[in-house]
Amino acid sequence: MENLTMMTDFYEFTMAQTYFNKGEQKKQVYFDIFFRKNIFNGGYSISGGLDNIIEYINNFRFSDEDIEYLRSLGNFSEEFLRYLRDLRFTGDIYAIPDGTPVFPNEPVITVKANVIEAQLLETALLAYFNHGTLVTTASKRITNAAKGRPVSEFGPRRAPGAPSAIEVSKYAYIGGCVGTSNVMSGKKYGIPVMGTMAHSMICDDDSEYDAFLNYAESNPDNCVFLVDTFDTLRSGIPNAIRVIKKTGYKFKGIRIDSGNLVSLSKKARIMLDEAGFADTKICVSNGLDERKVMDLLSQGAPIDSFGIGDNIASPKELVGGVYKLVAIEKNGELIPKIKVSEDTIKTINPGYKKVYRFYDKTTGYALGDVIALAEEKIPKDKYTLISPTDEWKMTTITNYEVRELQVPIFKDGKQVYNVPTVRVSRDYCFKEFETLYPEIKRSENPHGYYVDLTKKLLNLKKELILSIREQIDEDSKNPELSLRRK
Amino acid sequence: MENLTMMTDFYEFTMAQTYFNKGEQKKQVYFDIFFRKNIFNGGYSISGGLDNIIEYINNFRFSDEDIEYLRSLGNFSEEFLRYLRDLRFTGDIYAIPDGTPVFPNEPVITVKANVIEAQLLETALLAYFNHGTLVTTASKRITNAAKGRPVSEFGPRRAPGAPSAIEVSKYAYIGGCVGTSNVMSGKKYGIPVMGTMAHSMICDDDSEYDAFLNYAESNPDNCVFLVDTFDTLRSGIPNAIRVIKKTGYKFKGIRIDSGNLVSLSKKARIMLDEAGFADTKICVSNGLDERKVMDLLSQGAPIDSFGIGDNIASPKELVGGVYKLVAIEKNGELIPKIKVSEDTIKTINPGYKKVYRFYDKTTGYALGDVIALAEEKIPKDKYTLISPTDEWKMTTITNYEVRELQVPIFKDGKQVYNVPTVRVSRDYCFKEFETLYPEIKRSENPHGYYVDLTKKLLNLKKELILSIREQIDEDSKNPELSLRRK
Repeated sequence: MENLTMMTDFYEFTMAQTYFNKGEQKKQVYFDIFFRKNIFNGGYSISGGLDNIIEYINNFRFSDEDIEYLRSLGNFSEEFLRYLRDLRFTGDIYAIPDGTPVFPNEPVITVKANVIEAQLLETALLAYFNHGTLVTTASKRITNAAKGRPVSEFGPRRAPGAPSAIEVSKYAYIGGCVGTSNVMSGKKYGIPVMGTMAHSMICDDDSEYDAFLNYAESNPDNCVFLVDTFDTLRSGIPNAIRVIKKTGYKFKGIRIDSGNLVSLSKKARIMLDEAGFADTKICVSNGLDERKVMDLLSQGAPIDSFGIGDNIASPKELVGGVYKLVAIEKNGELIPKIKVSEDTIKTINPGYKKVYRFYDKTTGYALGDVIALAEEKIPKDKYTLISPTDEWKMTTITNYEVRELQVPIFKDGKQVYNVPTVRVSRDYCFKEFETLYPEIKRSENPHGYYVDLTKKLLNLKKELILSIREQIDEDSKNPELSLRRK
Repeated sequence: MENLTMMTDFYEFTMAQTYFNKGEQKKQVYFDIFFRKNIFNGGYSISGGLDNIIEYINNFRFSDEDIEYLRSLGNFSEEFLRYLRDLRFTGDIYAIPDGTPVFPNEPVITVKANVIEAQLLETALLAYFNHGTLVTTASKRITNAAKGRPVSEFGPRRAPGAPSAIEVSKYAYIGGCVGTSNVMSGKKYGIPVMGTMAHSMICDDDSEYDAFLNYAESNPDNCVFLVDTFDTLRSGIPNAIRVIKKTGYKFKGIRIDSGNLVSLSKKARIMLDEAGFADTKICVSNGLDERKVMDLLSQGAPIDSFGIGDNIASPKELVGGVYKLVAIEKNGELIPKIKVSEDTIKTINPGYKKVYRFYDKTTGYALGDVIALAEEKIPKDKYTLISPTDEWKMTTITNYEVRELQVPIFKDGKQVYNVPTVRVSRDYCFKEFETLYPEIKRSENPHGYYVDLTKKLLNLKKELILSIREQIDEDSKNPELSLRRK
């Protein structure tokens, strides 16, 4: 793997040098990664990117060449550059495993490290988290909309460049796709690879019939014919049937990639059935997304499987995960920190925190989550969840099990977490997704999932906001004073 | 660079094996890369990705490990796998250089190679083309909307993973950004890097004043203060002013990252001016896109520069470039090919083609493009351009110079094109963009740029479509016959 330590924002270095000059090389701080809104106006997101983050951190070091470049910029002292050259990650990381349903404002990843290391990690961690979560969530949403019909990820050509495509196929698989067209991801991650032919192969031959025949002779076990090159019903399907009747190979399926997929699939089904191929599957593709998949199925289109490219490889959404300082250690004490904002949604939850999920003991359903300060204990018998968006909405739960969602990933700079295989992450993702109530999972107008803040956390947040406001009011009466917030 | 040869769709291999079994190892074919619609409902796109494509092709080879994996899939013969192991790119490529304004249906890249090589390249070429064109176009549109004010690309954390972020920053720069926050891109491509501080640095310190002061002491030449951590007008700006008055460092600027950017920037301007800092710049950020940039400026916000992340790093658009077979060679003859479709927009322009651009000799403006068959000559004195979407709309031009847009990139598998530096591509992009009429460049409801097909090409297209239709009609009367299209 190319060393990507330098893939970080310039301001991480200017800030790091400031911390360095203040002598904060040993100051421990806590950063949370979280997002503020589910993508797709959805009721949930599925976390992704942790595997990449672990690899990135294990490779975290500046080469001599990197230091030379930084020196050339003229902004950094020799002492600071020397410090960077020897820098390795020595902190702790806690994170919610890839493939877990997660919700706005939950700390999905928490970094505890000295302030310089923690600051320098920000950019890459966010890039990986945002992308992994985007693709895993998109894949889960589309596969969920397909109601059990297999969805194959055909997205590499629409992914953001070839290196990114490899990761897209992995997260698509974890999110629920049955496989990918991406051979490199197949090789690297053991994902099933799939695909048969493009229009080019049909155009390349003397006729569609010849193209199908030649293909079938070379790939007798993989006869899925692309039937829309010239005319799906009058040319593609009749030629596919002729080739199978002539060769006797197993007629696995047809793929339709353009036109009105409802009427074409219905007519195709009739033609195939009448020709004696009731077991032959109909696969469709063509810029499909969650909405279109739902529409096709609601109109009774007899579609057996979907090929999805664009809307898994490059969904038109953005996770928008952020990395925020939530606490610092000072004289052995943990001091919670907050950033307020004129955009209320940008005000963060302060302090070193943990996330817990309540599962109904009888049904296994997830009842809600609570974000707590790390030192708090969560009651084991009875808890009142309060809606994050509506303080008057609450529910008291009993008969539950509680699970802490973050697990230790790094301890003192050493990886203490075994990254599961992609296959295991996929199974885990399915299992966890099944714990969500159907009304949380539905595509449109989902119910809001309970993500509560404990009273103690909520009070801390209010106190900090108030104390900042008061301090600003006071300071603004004394313009000569520097603004001090203790 | 990691060898990405295997980053290709599985069906490229099943088709390649079919060609191989037919003995088509020497059959020459032509593929075009083009897109069907300008993104952002725009009047133009800016091409990108060619540099990555060249690197990919130069590295194109299957390792023993790749072959072993393909063998394990059980779909491929030993003869075919042996052939793949020795395969290198031996064909020709013509392409329009990165940074050129391009338009729907123009062959931006043309691959002439044996059918197996050409087919195997498809996936990676499209991934690079689509992503490079997306980011370059997004950058050009936003920088154009900023009307000469500098736009910095702050997108790495919102890019699709860290490797992709490096390319994002490059294409953003080519498209018109003045620099990037991405240090790795700065190092790799010589792009100016920029940035100062995040909210975390302010929260980390005892107070905003202390944070600004400590930053200023460590970065005296780079004093741009982020002023919205607590309260922009009552805390951030007053503290920035105090720090500068105390230290005497040069007050380069402030950055506002939340709130109502119109009113905040107006009030900030007044405060700075009154304090004697009329030269101090105001930079804004916060999920800005082209639309928001235009709105801010149209409301008279005194903004000097913009920081853009999300909407350059992950624009909510998709270029949708495709790779289509347009001709084959058979017995020394060039045979044009077409794919028709029930979706009219998916019907392609057949044949081996060239694109020419007409420039007004007096003004230098681009008057329109014409797509021609490769063997055609373009008149040098007078030409009638016909609108691609409206046959009745036409314009006759004289006093022009003609330029062929594609240049040779590979010849017999050897690179014959020197990839310009990123800086040179950026200058070229500015220059070419200036040749477009303002009504093509405007953000909303742009005029359509003329992209004409020559009469000969148009007639060929019509003939091929008709002959396919006739053949299908005839064949469907004789269901016993295999469908033959000569």
